[in-house]
Amino acid sequence: MDNNTAPTWIAVDWGTSNLRVWAMDDSANILATQSSPLGMNAIASDENLSFEGVLIGLIDDWLPTGELPVPVVICGMAGAKQGWLEAPYCSVPVAPDALAFGAVRPDLSDRRISVSILPGVKQMGDADVMRGEETQLVGFMAQHTDYTGWVCLPGTHSKWARIDAGQITGFRTYMSGEVFALLSHHSILRHSVGDGWDDAAFADAVRAANARPSGFLHTLFTVRAAGLVRNDALVPPGAAVLSGTVIGAEIADVVGMLKPGEEIALVGDGKLAGLYRAALAVHGVEAKTVDGAAITLAGLTQAFGVLSRIAE
Amino acid sequence: MDNNTAPTWIAVDWGTSNLRVWAMDDSANILATQSSPLGMNAIASDENLSFEGVLIGLIDDWLPTGELPVPVVICGMAGAKQGWLEAPYCSVPVAPDALAFGAVRPDLSDRRISVSILPGVKQMGDADVMRGEETQLVGFMAQHTDYTGWVCLPGTHSKWARIDAGQITGFRTYMSGEVFALLSHHSILRHSVGDGWDDAAFADAVRAANARPSGFLHTLFTVRAAGLVRNDALVPPGAAVLSGTVIGAEIADVVGMLKPGEEIALVGDGKLAGLYRAALAVHGVEAKTVDGAAITLAGLTQAFGVLSRIAE
Repeated sequence: MDNNTAPTWIAVDWGTSNLRVWAMDDSANILATQSSPLGMNAIASDENLSFEGVLIGLIDDWLPTGELPVPVVICGMAGAKQGWLEAPYCSVPVAPDALAFGAVRPDLSDRRISVSILPGVKQMGDADVMRGEETQLVGFMAQHTDYTGWVCLPGTHSKWARIDAGQITGFRTYMSGEVFALLSHHSILRHSVGDGWDDAAFADAVRAANARPSGFLHTLFTVRAAGLVRNDALVPPGAAVLSGTVIGAEIADVVGMLKPGEEIALVGDGKLAGLYRAALAVHGVEAKTVDGAAITLAGLTQAFGVLSRIAE
Repeated sequence: MDNNTAPTWIAVDWGTSNLRVWAMDDSANILATQSSPLGMNAIASDENLSFEGVLIGLIDDWLPTGELPVPVVICGMAGAKQGWLEAPYCSVPVAPDALAFGAVRPDLSDRRISVSILPGVKQMGDADVMRGEETQLVGFMAQHTDYTGWVCLPGTHSKWARIDAGQITGFRTYMSGEVFALLSHHSILRHSVGDGWDDAAFADAVRAANARPSGFLHTLFTVRAAGLVRNDALVPPGAAVLSGTVIGAEIADVVGMLKPGEEIALVGDGKLAGLYRAALAVHGVEAKTVDGAAITLAGLTQAFGVLSRIAE
């Protein structure tokens, strides 16, 4: 970044295990980016680190001196109870502007910045929470006005959010990613999950998960048992079966909620999103692909716009 | 045990993590018992231990000298591939006598005993295996002739076996115990599972698991989320909700298979069996209580009888 073009504002996505910052001009152009592994967990577990210090370390070169402070807009775990400053959750239904209105402002040592931390979203009845994904959803809505349907954010704890009439009306978190990791590394199934993969075995497991959702805890054991009772050549790769069983359980639940005409958008284009896409295809459902970083930035940009209007 | 009353035979239940032996007379009376933590895993991981050595260490005092060898009948993991000598699985349907007919006899250094290791049982279609429980089931059938219904053996990997016309006709293993342990100790839910307990919260979770079986991976996360979105006083104890969610998922699957007039028998009277009994009660199902050690010994006794007839 040219030293002469100080950013108009700075966008920050502060996750549990990493951190990404963007220097932005006043036309929503990206002037520069930085990233770091110093997510909330790393900072919370090291008394020599502070959120402000880590942030300044990444953006110091971007900041002008002796001017008005540069606005910094942050989403994600910086607003958690164990984060920088708690930003209390908004409750669904959530309209996009609610995030900026719920932002909190930590005290700072460095006068070159002003910081707004956006809140997460909670759901009371069917208890659930998100921090960071709500900003992606707001960015998605900014890019897809009039969207009705579900947005899937795959991950360790995947989120399925329903968007209707420009609001987040509800969402469901699934522990599929964490459950798969625990089973494949720490359960008896670790002996059955190797490097092999087979798309047809994955699809079969997705179908089986849908055919008998209550059988989940039994189907898991068949991954182990198949290797004990069949000839090796006839045993489908355990990783594909386990993955199809776990993701298939999640997809079966979501597809059961789909109403006619509702769309599904899938955030990400990596390996995990590909498995979600394949599982949806087993159900005859096609998902729109969405760029995760782009909607994060779009959501932070939306919030910056609202914060600017509030400040005026 | 009086030195003058050498046992007619010796019964052995050799599990993954422990070992139990009984000295028996010719009228099915127990003359003495011993137990040890040297299950299959301990022996397999210590090159200084052997199955024969461990066994002799426990029963040495019981053995007469210069006589015919004392028959030893073993069920459980001693017959696994990683055990003493592999006893290939019988396939369902399995009649009680099949276990003795499938027994294998390891070579021995000590001439004072002769050893028969009973096979486990496998199921090919809906792949599944058991080792040890089949002997308990045979013992149960010996005590309950004309039984039709299911026998539940709770544990790390719980087993539900169907008994019909004096045979084991099929069974299903559920990973509920291991999944509960992984989630409560190693997942994000470990922060939500404390010492508190509430029977009503457990029962509510069992009902919820049955109402929407496909929601399992989401319901898990609500255990965490409830603590973040509600006042502490309104959050049910996480251990009770998680336990009810996991056991409830298993029970919902089993209750869905129950045919009119079929009974359920539950092996054990400890804490875990109590939770299974409570979950069944939520479904209006009453389970017969069965003593696990008694049916193990009854099954080994049945096999000893068949082995004696074969030898004649």
